Amino acid sequence: MTYGVGLLLEDGLVLCSDSRTHAGVDHVAIFNKMHVWENPGERCLVLLTAGNLAVSQSVVNLLTEGLGKDRTETLANVPSMFEAARLVGRAVREIYDLDAARLKEQGSEFSISLILGGQLKGRRLRLFQIYSAGNFIEASAETPYFQIGETKYGKPILDRVVMGKTTLNEAAKCALISMDSTLRSNVSVGLPVDIAIVRRDECRVAVRRRLDEKDIYLSDIRRRWSEGLRSVFQTVPDPDWKV
Amino acid sequence: MTYGVGLLLEDGLVLCSDSRTHAGVDHVAIFNKMHVWENPGERCLVLLTAGNLAVSQSVVNLLTEGLGKDRTETLANVPSMFEAARLVGRAVREIYDLDAARLKEQGSEFSISLILGGQLKGRRLRLFQIYSAGNFIEASAETPYFQIGETKYGKPILDRVVMGKTTLNEAAKCALISMDSTLRSNVSVGLPVDIAIVRRDECRVAVRRRLDEKDIYLSDIRRRWSEGLRSVFQTVPDPDWKV
Repeated sequence: MTYGVGLLLEDGLVLCSDSRTHAGVDHVAIFNKMHVWENPGERCLVLLTAGNLAVSQSVVNLLTEGLGKDRTETLANVPSMFEAARLVGRAVREIYDLDAARLKEQGSEFSISLILGGQLKGRRLRLFQIYSAGNFIEASAETPYFQIGETKYGKPILDRVVMGKTTLNEAAKCALISMDSTLRSNVSVGLPVDIAIVRRDECRVAVRRRLDEKDIYLSDIRRRWSEGLRSVFQTVPDPDWKV
Repeated sequence: MTYGVGLLLEDGLVLCSDSRTHAGVDHVAIFNKMHVWENPGERCLVLLTAGNLAVSQSVVNLLTEGLGKDRTETLANVPSMFEAARLVGRAVREIYDLDAARLKEQGSEFSISLILGGQLKGRRLRLFQIYSAGNFIEASAETPYFQIGETKYGKPILDRVVMGKTTLNEAAKCALISMDSTLRSNVSVGLPVDIAIVRRDECRVAVRRRLDEKDIYLSDIRRRWSEGLRSVFQTVPDPDWKV
């Protein structure tokens, strides 16, 4: 399983994903689920993937090596974010056409979901969620985040905290706390965590970190959040029902 | 959808469920999902149901009206909690045999999951989770709670707070906070909330409340929890990455 979250804010984008994959409990491994296409100052696209790892990797390879008649259309040369989202959708459909029937024959579903965020010079910063059918939706001021994979454990904190005007550092903190809730409740989501921050109109990745269990900041917020929750729990009064 | 949670503690049991059902977005209604069989001082059994409402109601009716050759076996006369869990499983299988094929023909799955807690005089307080195949598992000191329905949003707080020695009032507070997280993130789970508390060795329901949006205690903990989370979020330091 996977957990990935992308947030679209007034100041820019925050994208965060875990790195655990498993094909059964005896085949657990670490794979990167965050992919960046960047020409600093010109374009910056970040893609998060969830679902069948073979499908995800094939899609990412297609987006790098090229689609179209001459295999020249890539995320490195696509002319807009809208065209980028369409290209990701086309890559998903190409892999679907190749793999889905074979997967089904052997009892597996074709599954992939993706978050694509980024900006091209002179154009808008945008965030998309792309489905396994290759169709997609775009984040807005009212719904400023998308999640993929094991989404539910980490949703409550996003619902309570994230707004368009949330700062990038606060949003990164929120994404990591959302990740922490997921890590604690589902063993198929695991460290290290990848996080990327893109400032609006910079067209490059301002921050990209891989945080493992030795990372001091991640350990610190996990401990503080856990202690803080317990402390709020204690301050909320018990019911006065006679028990 | 439904959210139900049952907690087995050193001091007794806490059971909590929402009451929203929906058959499509234009048929949303309130139905009780908490059912009590009680002879105070002698026996007290509380059943929470999730899944297809017609299946749940049929199972509850069978458990009241009777199973077996003479239709005499009910939760009001079953001789132990183990036999009670088996009886619930038998009721589920009887309804499965009646309904499952017809449901499948019309594109619906047979779905039900249940939590059964209680005690008979002179016997142990026990908590079971019963599956749609009629089989069941029992809670233990290491895993003192079960959830049914829309379980994920409300799981993180249970994982962080609940232990066997948690008091009944604290456990009730935790169940309601867990319910609150679910209510906020999933519109198919809704008020009012039913909550029951059973003290160990009393064999009766010590507290049973239905809490709606006008309930002062429920409103108070929802507001305090929300404010408390935001305040902990603010006290956790932002990353010092240069953004």
